Amino acid sequence: MAGNTLGEIFKITTFGESHGNAMGAVIDGCPAGLELSVTDIENELKRRRPSSQYGSRDEKDMPEILSGVFEGKTLGSPIAIIVRNTNQNSGDYDELKNIYRPGHADFTYDAKYGFRDHRGGGRSSGRETLSRVAAGAVAKIFLALHGIKIRAWVSLFADFDFPSIGEENFDLDEVEKNFMRIPCKINESIKQKFEKISEEGDSAGGNISCLVTGAPAGIGEPVFDKLDARLASSILSIGACKGIEFGAGFAVCSMKGSDNNDKPCGEGFKFATNNCGGILGGISTGQDIFFKAAFKPTPSISKKQNAFDKDGKIKEISIKGRHDICIVPRAVPVVEAMTALALADFLLLSRCSRI
Amino acid sequence: MAGNTLGEIFKITTFGESHGNAMGAVIDGCPAGLELSVTDIENELKRRRPSSQYGSRDEKDMPEILSGVFEGKTLGSPIAIIVRNTNQNSGDYDELKNIYRPGHADFTYDAKYGFRDHRGGGRSSGRETLSRVAAGAVAKIFLALHGIKIRAWVSLFADFDFPSIGEENFDLDEVEKNFMRIPCKINESIKQKFEKISEEGDSAGGNISCLVTGAPAGIGEPVFDKLDARLASSILSIGACKGIEFGAGFAVCSMKGSDNNDKPCGEGFKFATNNCGGILGGISTGQDIFFKAAFKPTPSISKKQNAFDKDGKIKEISIKGRHDICIVPRAVPVVEAMTALALADFLLLSRCSRI
Amino acid sequence: MAGNTLGEIFKITTFGESHGNAMGAVIDGCPAGLELSVTDIENELKRRRPSSQYGSRDEKDMPEILSGVFEGKTLGSPIAIIVRNTNQNSGDYDELKNIYRPGHADFTYDAKYGFRDHRGGGRSSGRETLSRVAAGAVAKIFLALHGIKIRAWVSLFADFDFPSIGEENFDLDEVEKNFMRIPCKINESIKQKFEKISEEGDSAGGNISCLVTGAPAGIGEPVFDKLDARLASSILSIGACKGIEFGAGFAVCSMKGSDNNDKPCGEGFKFATNNCGGILGGISTGQDIFFKAAFKPTPSISKKQNAFDKDGKIKEISIKGRHDICIVPRAVPVVEAMTALALADFLLLSRCSRI
Amino acid sequence: MAGNTLGEIFKITTFGESHGNAMGAVIDGCPAGLELSVTDIENELKRRRPSSQYGSRDEKDMPEILSGVFEGKTLGSPIAIIVRNTNQNSGDYDELKNIYRPGHADFTYDAKYGFRDHRGGGRSSGRETLSRVAAGAVAKIFLALHGIKIRAWVSLFADFDFPSIGEENFDLDEVEKNFMRIPCKINESIKQKFEKISEEGDSAGGNISCLVTGAPAGIGEPVFDKLDARLASSILSIGACKGIEFGAGFAVCSMKGSDNNDKPCGEGFKFATNNCGGILGGISTGQDIFFKAAFKPTPSISKKQNAFDKDGKIKEISIKGRHDICIVPRAVPVVEAMTALALADFLLLSRCSRI
Repeated sequence: MAGNTLGEIFKITTFGESHGNAMGAVIDGCPAGLELSVTDIENELKRRRPSSQYGSRDEKDMPEILSGVFEGKTLGSPIAIIVRNTNQNSGDYDELKNIYRPGHADFTYDAKYGFRDHRGGGRSSGRETLSRVAAGAVAKIFLALHGIKIRAWVSLFADFDFPSIGEENFDLDEVEKNFMRIPCKINESIKQKFEKISEEGDSAGGNISCLVTGAPAGIGEPVFDKLDARLASSILSIGACKGIEFGAGFAVCSMKGSDNNDKPCGEGFKFATNNCGGILGGISTGQDIFFKAAFKPTPSISKKQNAFDKDGKIKEISIKGRHDICIVPRAVPVVEAMTALALADFLLLSRCSRI
Repeated sequence: MAGNTLGEIFKITTFGESHGNAMGAVIDGCPAGLELSVTDIENELKRRRPSSQYGSRDEKDMPEILSGVFEGKTLGSPIAIIVRNTNQNSGDYDELKNIYRPGHADFTYDAKYGFRDHRGGGRSSGRETLSRVAAGAVAKIFLALHGIKIRAWVSLFADFDFPSIGEENFDLDEVEKNFMRIPCKINESIKQKFEKISEEGDSAGGNISCLVTGAPAGIGEPVFDKLDARLASSILSIGACKGIEFGAGFAVCSMKGSDNNDKPCGEGFKFATNNCGGILGGISTGQDIFFKAAFKPTPSISKKQNAFDKDGKIKEISIKGRHDICIVPRAVPVVEAMTALALADFLLLSRCSRI
Repeated sequence: MAGNTLGEIFKITTFGESHGNAMGAVIDGCPAGLELSVTDIENELKRRRPSSQYGSRDEKDMPEILSGVFEGKTLGSPIAIIVRNTNQNSGDYDELKNIYRPGHADFTYDAKYGFRDHRGGGRSSGRETLSRVAAGAVAKIFLALHGIKIRAWVSLFADFDFPSIGEENFDLDEVEKNFMRIPCKINESIKQKFEKISEEGDSAGGNISCLVTGAPAGIGEPVFDKLDARLASSILSIGACKGIEFGAGFAVCSMKGSDNNDKPCGEGFKFATNNCGGILGGISTGQDIFFKAAFKPTPSISKKQNAFDKDGKIKEISIKGRHDICIVPRAVPVVEAMTALALADFLLLSRCSRI
Repeated sequence: MAGNTLGEIFKITTFGESHGNAMGAVIDGCPAGLELSVTDIENELKRRRPSSQYGSRDEKDMPEILSGVFEGKTLGSPIAIIVRNTNQNSGDYDELKNIYRPGHADFTYDAKYGFRDHRGGGRSSGRETLSRVAAGAVAKIFLALHGIKIRAWVSLFADFDFPSIGEENFDLDEVEKNFMRIPCKINESIKQKFEKISEEGDSAGGNISCLVTGAPAGIGEPVFDKLDARLASSILSIGACKGIEFGAGFAVCSMKGSDNNDKPCGEGFKFATNNCGGILGGISTGQDIFFKAAFKPTPSISKKQNAFDKDGKIKEISIKGRHDICIVPRAVPVVEAMTALALADFLLLSRCSRI
């Protein structure tokens, strides 16, 4: 255990502290024969990098593949990818050495390990997601080969709720064109909101929606390794995530069975709705898989706030350093990566269901 | 894999189809020396049994401990518990043999395995949760020994929202006194709602809230095995669950960082709020752990609805048999069981964090 | 962990103490669609039962399938099999309550758990292998479907060394015809040896050889899950086993590379020898897989010997009860079962090697 | 799965092909607070490096710690260690591209993956053990903290059998003083044997013995994860290993129970013999743990031999490049590393045996 390994067949192990030497991922169980280049990984890592607008630390994040690829194809042996940490202003953290930053894992890491790397959160830093995105890039290529595609976007930011699938103005092509990764044209009031929060030294949260197309029916395991259970744990394992819902989600609680059951609308297993989010009994139905996840506002804010120090005494602090005003847009590729990793694993597992 | 085993140290494996010979659980890794009797398990199973009001199949569910307990104490070897299935009206299901019931796993199981036990959902039946409750009973005793207590209740039913922790009328002592397991006195309008849905041949969903008290700080693993990630997967693995949120949950999306960060309110790590739900960076803070989960309305309804048959053709059906109008109250002990299993596992794992 | 689960895809969990209510196995991950009846399991269990000549406790060992099979075929859900313990003379063990029997796990279980079921060794009893044989019966059927067959036999007993594969008089058809499971006609001197040891109140050890035919090339995982590594751990996990060797085994230590390397003897990957035992780099070569395992003499003997009591004091004891003079013939189906379980798992895993 | 991860709590994942960019190991689950420097790892890696006498490729093998250590102590987060491959004469392997070297995994990797890195065996190279030794160095430090020490040596080389524990001339202090790592003074006839095999372009095998002192009673898991089962799989996972035996090993097969059972020789659990090798029922007895493993002669020899090419045709080859005449002395630190990894894992697991 110890928590840094994920998956059964397509399995990743990640490592790295925010201000250590490098971040990395080892992918074990990626099938042999997959075409893979360092550019494939670089391209996904770029999507995770901060826009100049976010306010956060920017690093080139150049991945290096240490093993597992030969003549442009995966060998079936572990694919190790590392990214050196280069832009570390560790000094920013000196005064936080004995302070537990509110909303961070500083206190809990000390409680667990008796000791921690206080620089930028160490292992609990958001920078840890870099390894996930690198590994997810490989999973995505494997899934694409089998016709499965994953797209995520910001569906809510602060008090702005963006169009849903099927609604007017909903346009997935917009997502990668705007710095908020929203599925529609970005307008001035959104930008102003962003600016205002930034000026206040505060931060904002939001929702991410994720859509998987092309997944065949029959993917997922019963009982404890349901596809939705695994996706839930994969997404909730992203530091800032506080909730997840599938299909109609929390809204089902107030629906009647006759409304919630997805209605057949055409022969050959076509449905008028997708309240189930493409998963029944933990196994894919062949419909699109859909879920939504809640992300909290960045806990690091420059606005003054009270915090505990190591002795349990209250101190007023203002967190310096380079922090995202809103982490949510940058979490979009992370959500996609985690989804890809779960699906790649289950797709392989599904090869073992029948004699 | 194959999904029927859960946990790393305190590990359970469950088995059983709804209309097969027996349901069961094997608990491996329960520490030696725990006082355990069959009555402890029976008492939890009773909480899962249907009230006469629910409309569902009633079985005595008498557990038998086959192994792992000697002279009233756990041996450290696997504890196998079985419950015979006795009240099986398999005939109820004959006409559903070639029909995929809407909202059920009938179609997905066929897609995965090419074959299924159609009687009552087979392995995907809600009856499968019996094994979870039996195993959870053991986990609860272990946790209680370490001062950890778990309580769940129905916090929303159909369009009734019940009082939250700290609100007036919120009373956990009420939960086990009323058939809806709500944390307040039950009133006539709730009962009438229940009756009305029943008369319509329809069903209702709801929320379950869960509170863990007494968990020390430092429980949980980093990155992929975060305590909230594991709880999410544990709870989402319950058939009817469609979502989960921790602490302030989806509401954090619209909060500012300065609001969401829990504020110190007294020396020694006391906080004015618990927006984080008692978990930061995937590790317990020592506050109460709190989450809420969404449960869909029972998909089995006697009201007429369209469904696909095996050939993808649409048929009108009315599902007979004994089905819960609202599964949510009976899912309360299941949520507690899953929470207990996750915590027991992590509590043991936390013994290995330091040299 | 806790040691009672084995395998990654074709995975078993076993339970049961020698004098508890029942022994059992849960097989999770057996592919759906396999024809399986209780007779298949019973037939293998019969092979594990003592011959009247062995001197050991005899039970009917009637298996019951609790789940996972529907209309004669596996469902893909867990197959739970139990066998009630019926012939328990627990009284035999009363005087051993505070004695650590030499060569048994009595002391080590107390050291680990602080407490034990002293009746017949509890979980550490040889009776535990019943669960392995039951589960192995299912694995064997799956393997047979893919053309893989497993045969084991006694190749050495006390100071009798029996013919090897290819040698004159070696005849696998003899194995199940004689009570010693040797691959040749049994003669009087062997029987006399057996009688003599029995009269002395002593016991004897021996070797078991195992041959797998029909395994395709490419089965096994690299590095830590090599096929031979898994087989080694599977066989060494049988209580009385003290060693294993593959192919030419310990003899390779004194061979030169030019002698040990298997020589091509005909186009299409045919070899003159099988020093490698059908495995190179942990992966099957397509040749027969062959290994030999060492089994110690039964530690329970009626002959007087010294033992430690709970306080570390030396006591003279004579172990009563029904014990095998030589456990080795009865371990033959256990070795086959463990081999089958390893191969079934790796055969499924091999479906995931390529894109 | 996919075989490159080992352990449950103290868990390692390794990666790297012989002629790829780097070899590496990620240790997850090493407890926090352990003092660790890069020199600790370097020192163990030096022991694995070839003596000039062995004839094999020499690289500096400079380890770099990428994560998991802060201010000289382990953080509890994954410790990633890499070693760059610098001395790669890939050209040596060009003519072997379409040849399956006898005794190597060339054919089996192609059979499994449909494709391989032919340069120096790729992932199946002996160079892979570098990662094990690096990780084992960390495990050793953890074990030393708990009083557990591991020593291995060459106990047989070609036809030379070296003194055993307790025999005259047996001296563990000699092991690291001679290039053959034998537990006694090395003499001329051994050196001449070595030279002769070298001149013939051939290779030799041998045995390694391993002794663990200081392990408390009660370490190990029951049934499938017995300490000896895990050690067997750990040691057999080393490429050239063909067999293992514990305590008296294969010799027990011809012993009587009354001889094999270790005899008490003094109050307080002292024994006259250690036929059990310090393990009973898969759990440590508190005596020394002892086992012996068989290693085959290096399959790469310059002497001419026949081999199959990719089409199954027979070709005569002479393997060039730098190969060990006898790999056994260099496998000594690998055996120690694998033993350390197994024990570190079980030592942590043993913390969870009791309530």
